[in-house]
Amino acid sequence: MQSPLIFLVAARRCEIHDLEQLALSCDLVQAVSGLVHRLQRERGTSNLYLASADARFDAQRAEHVGATRSAEDGVHTWLDGLAPDAGEAAPGGARLFTRIAMALHALDALPSLRAQVAARQCRAAEATQRYSRIVAALLALVFEAADIAVDPSVSRLLVSMFNLMQGKEFAGQERAAGAAAFAAGRLDADGAQTLSHLIEAQEQCLQRFEAFGTADSLRQWRALQALMPLPELERLRRRLMSSPTGGGLDRALADTWFDCCSQRLDLIHQAEAHLARGLKDECARRIDATRAELGDQESLLATLSASMPGEGLPAPAAGAEAGEPAAVDPAGAAAEPLGPRLTRSIVETMQAQSRRLQQMSDELAAVRAALDERKLVERAKGLLMAHHGVGEDEAYRLLRQTAMNQGRRLVDVARTLLDMSDLLPPRA
Amino acid sequence: MQSPLIFLVAARRCEIHDLEQLALSCDLVQAVSGLVHRLQRERGTSNLYLASADARFDAQRAEHVGATRSAEDGVHTWLDGLAPDAGEAAPGGARLFTRIAMALHALDALPSLRAQVAARQCRAAEATQRYSRIVAALLALVFEAADIAVDPSVSRLLVSMFNLMQGKEFAGQERAAGAAAFAAGRLDADGAQTLSHLIEAQEQCLQRFEAFGTADSLRQWRALQALMPLPELERLRRRLMSSPTGGGLDRALADTWFDCCSQRLDLIHQAEAHLARGLKDECARRIDATRAELGDQESLLATLSASMPGEGLPAPAAGAEAGEPAAVDPAGAAAEPLGPRLTRSIVETMQAQSRRLQQMSDELAAVRAALDERKLVERAKGLLMAHHGVGEDEAYRLLRQTAMNQGRRLVDVARTLLDMSDLLPPRA
Repeated sequence: MQSPLIFLVAARRCEIHDLEQLALSCDLVQAVSGLVHRLQRERGTSNLYLASADARFDAQRAEHVGATRSAEDGVHTWLDGLAPDAGEAAPGGARLFTRIAMALHALDALPSLRAQVAARQCRAAEATQRYSRIVAALLALVFEAADIAVDPSVSRLLVSMFNLMQGKEFAGQERAAGAAAFAAGRLDADGAQTLSHLIEAQEQCLQRFEAFGTADSLRQWRALQALMPLPELERLRRRLMSSPTGGGLDRALADTWFDCCSQRLDLIHQAEAHLARGLKDECARRIDATRAELGDQESLLATLSASMPGEGLPAPAAGAEAGEPAAVDPAGAAAEPLGPRLTRSIVETMQAQSRRLQQMSDELAAVRAALDERKLVERAKGLLMAHHGVGEDEAYRLLRQTAMNQGRRLVDVARTLLDMSDLLPPRA
Repeated sequence: MQSPLIFLVAARRCEIHDLEQLALSCDLVQAVSGLVHRLQRERGTSNLYLASADARFDAQRAEHVGATRSAEDGVHTWLDGLAPDAGEAAPGGARLFTRIAMALHALDALPSLRAQVAARQCRAAEATQRYSRIVAALLALVFEAADIAVDPSVSRLLVSMFNLMQGKEFAGQERAAGAAAFAAGRLDADGAQTLSHLIEAQEQCLQRFEAFGTADSLRQWRALQALMPLPELERLRRRLMSSPTGGGLDRALADTWFDCCSQRLDLIHQAEAHLARGLKDECARRIDATRAELGDQESLLATLSASMPGEGLPAPAAGAEAGEPAAVDPAGAAAEPLGPRLTRSIVETMQAQSRRLQQMSDELAAVRAALDERKLVERAKGLLMAHHGVGEDEAYRLLRQTAMNQGRRLVDVARTLLDMSDLLPPRA
């Protein structure tokens, strides 16, 4: 015979266990944020190195490659530290681990990419695309961590973090595309379209980052924004966008553009680091609070065991679980050696816990809904890849192009495509 | 350094672990289904015993109490067999364990309820209500098991099972209410309203049971329905509903009614037992399938380790992860000692696994949406309990009454109430 209170305590232990697993994911997100920042710098310098013959980019690139390698080591060390069976017990472990596998696989492509860049065997645009694919695999890992998080307050912060990182990645791609254009002295129509998409997409992400952030992360963001060279960025953007097709861009501005964008990216990365600390603090706070509640329940259990050796919780008074006063039923009261107050406090604890868990589940669903748009776009991309036999980048380009041509949002085009998927020819 | 494949294997292990935990929940659901069936019989006989002075119900009641006790022991033995930390690793463990605590607490009320029934210290209506509350706590446990299940195919069957059990419970309450009316020789307006609500509610549940069942469970259901005394049930229902207020019911029909309802309930319970076996089979099938896939991945991993001692997965060819032919990139091909075929098979495995997990998550969300209505009603009940200071039964009665008066569905009234909750006075 088991006492209900034993299961109530077991439920709390589950919560603590889940929160501890979540704290691990948050550590991983922090390590990934650092690695992505390094990869973005390496991508940027590789771009400059490939686009110009200037020898000074050689040393810069080597330096950034070194920094990325040590960030990579950080992620690998973190993964090595995972207990081999840690994931079995983690909520959503299968999804997180699959994304880790995909991210590791993407990272394995780095050495050969670097060798080709060093030997100038690869064009700037292709190198950027290959670096971006690696970053995308790392961002997908952060997205998954946000989607499987089991605590609504932590989940909110992870959604905020993912959007900040994704926004920063669009900004990083903008830096690369702009730098290539300045270095080449020209921006073609396709490049201009890409740039305006990147600017719009990063703004959407940063809005979502703000919407899901805390008051504290917002305050810090405003302070960092004040330090960003935003007027200069806008001036340079205008130069890029208004350059006559076929030429007219001042090549000397390549450095200015790159430095201006980099300054902003570094500040965004500071916001990420701040948010990552906030994530860790929130996990710790939730774990502490749940531990304190567990402690209360354990002492209640100890009190009960002491007063009723060999027995579980006393029989409840009739109607007690429906919130009616226990005193109405004399027979019920007789079965309550602990007094109606203690019995009622246990019943209230159970009801409160059940309500709280249901509420958390509702809140989680609401937070996760913010991730639905990206899921639709990913699914639409997958559909295009399967039906058109094209790669991921090309599938995305097709979607974006359709959205631009029709003046619709990317996600709406994705939704329409998925709705129409039954009408598409069968997979090849 | 860890190979991506190691994490892919870890992901499969997570899935197997989650499915094994799910199989445990399904065992619990099976034990609970048996216990609920016994409790419903005990409730029915207690009702007859209290409503009539006939001594033969005494022996019947004692017999049913004995049967319930052994079903109770079954559930307790099952719970005792749970490893103390089993739940920590179970998805949704906190929610399931809280519901187990609440169900155990409700069951603790049985001895005093039985003592009062035996001593005729309790009216039939009150005894029914108290038994129903215990059954409700057990059904809430099954509901939670359905809501936290992580596999869409098993989740569907659990939703089907919950609706069958809930439908059977409404049928059991109908049996009790009808038996009390026949035994008393009268059915008042309130009782008539309760009866028609119970008939409608059980039909809704049985429709949902069919909608979420398998072809096999449906076939079995049709066969069982053919054995049910449905024409007789409808004749007796008509007698009840058309009796003039204040009397006119043939007391001799109490037994006929009770036997007719019981025959149907026993057949519904057979469908439950069939569905419970189907649940176990589905869990076993899913576990076997996932184990087979794990085996494939482990042998792939072994092949890789043998061919590249001390190394992880080889670097992918550029573009390989985007589905482009690996051969386009000579440098990438050079980094592929396993040949492009093996590398591509690993990449495809990762992509397929990721797509499958996302698809499962989407399907799960769709199945769980079928549980939303009940959640709304539960939340609305909680709101009424808090604001009106009434018990659960009264809160439900209020909701039902409002729905009947306004000719609206219960769930719509619940939704409107929740939408308006900000306008309610603050909690007492």
